[in-house]
Amino acid sequence: MTTNRFEHPLNEKTRIYLRVESLLRQLQHSSSFSDSHQYQIFFKSIFDLLEIFEQMQLKSELAKDLEKQRQTYRSWLNIDDVDQEMLGNLLRDIDVVHKELMMAERFGQSLREDRFLSAIRQRFGLPGGSCCFDLPSLHYWLHLPLEKRMHDAEKWLGNLKPLMNALSMWLKLTRETGRMKPQIARSGFYQSDAEEANILRLTIPMECGVYPMISGHKNRFAIKFIAFESGQAYPNDVEFELAVCN
Amino acid sequence: MTTNRFEHPLNEKTRIYLRVESLLRQLQHSSSFSDSHQYQIFFKSIFDLLEIFEQMQLKSELAKDLEKQRQTYRSWLNIDDVDQEMLGNLLRDIDVVHKELMMAERFGQSLREDRFLSAIRQRFGLPGGSCCFDLPSLHYWLHLPLEKRMHDAEKWLGNLKPLMNALSMWLKLTRETGRMKPQIARSGFYQSDAEEANILRLTIPMECGVYPMISGHKNRFAIKFIAFESGQAYPNDVEFELAVCN
Repeated sequence: MTTNRFEHPLNEKTRIYLRVESLLRQLQHSSSFSDSHQYQIFFKSIFDLLEIFEQMQLKSELAKDLEKQRQTYRSWLNIDDVDQEMLGNLLRDIDVVHKELMMAERFGQSLREDRFLSAIRQRFGLPGGSCCFDLPSLHYWLHLPLEKRMHDAEKWLGNLKPLMNALSMWLKLTRETGRMKPQIARSGFYQSDAEEANILRLTIPMECGVYPMISGHKNRFAIKFIAFESGQAYPNDVEFELAVCN
Repeated sequence: MTTNRFEHPLNEKTRIYLRVESLLRQLQHSSSFSDSHQYQIFFKSIFDLLEIFEQMQLKSELAKDLEKQRQTYRSWLNIDDVDQEMLGNLLRDIDVVHKELMMAERFGQSLREDRFLSAIRQRFGLPGGSCCFDLPSLHYWLHLPLEKRMHDAEKWLGNLKPLMNALSMWLKLTRETGRMKPQIARSGFYQSDAEEANILRLTIPMECGVYPMISGHKNRFAIKFIAFESGQAYPNDVEFELAVCN
């Protein structure tokens, strides 16, 4: 049975975290330049990230959130039934990632100061704006040998490593707090409480032909299933799995 | 010797034509969805095209320009030294493309009316905005079998066929009017006349490490070569090839 996995953030900050995670994945995937058009995704992802960094103090938010997780796990020290070795390892991992994060530059600073990147950033966003006459320096760069381009990509990505590590640590620990449980959306509708939760995770069987529209805040959320073909509310029951992650 | 080919439009309309050509190429290249992230390029290209269609009466401009080319070639009928068979074939080809163009819908009309496309268009442009929670219907679509997705892509591209054919005809005939000739940019600078020309085409040896910055109108243009590494004007002579296309 093919299933469709969905994630939904329950607050604005987590929404940004998930978008950044998705952009970082695109960036890594496209940094091999294995396809002649992948540079489009690569640079679009970099510039999208820069835009997000300019809108939000991502570094300090993430540091605060990691610190909160560290406090939670610290409170489990010396408690019976908790695997103290695993807990110790985890706390050490969080320490490393948190320290790297605190020592990192303001996110995107070197990227913003990069002469090549900042020269192409503005026009890149125009519709069809990556033509050679719009961006002759980009066009030149695309003709450089693959090793040189991959070397540049590595340099740019290197600056984002502390963010990548901290974000994936926080998201991993957050996702692990929820456990998938079977649920039924009667007549395509489901609602429940979500005390201070950050992420909802859903697994939906593809054969229903539906996707979820989710609305929610940290305390309560509602899932309405929509039939893809008609674009209308799905009138039947949907059996799905749900994990609420804090 | 590796060379770098550049094209530069000498008027705003040709600039749009070349951008549209580049978007249509991206669209076709990415419509195989052979890579898990190609859909990003595919939809970005569609939405960029729609934005251009909304800014400009592309169809009537292109029809006028094709008509102008037809008139030029018609004036060669019954002239000695002109291969009348080739000319006849060419005129027939122009007729077909021009007729298809005139019968076509307003560019992008079916795409704009497509429920799925118009539902995802707005959020797709947000930084990182193609996450599953931003665009659940897109996420569902990405889980559909490849044949279904390619079928949809074919349907969307089908609407653009008359534009593709007319534009590539006009650009092909325009590019053929120029012939590459060796030139020297003394101290990295070159200027010349370009009576009513539409496109400049350049071939530049990669080993110079330069890219061109071109400014120009229909009557006169200037090329300044910039050293890629320093970003400064290149102080030495550059031997390059140039074609001026009407």
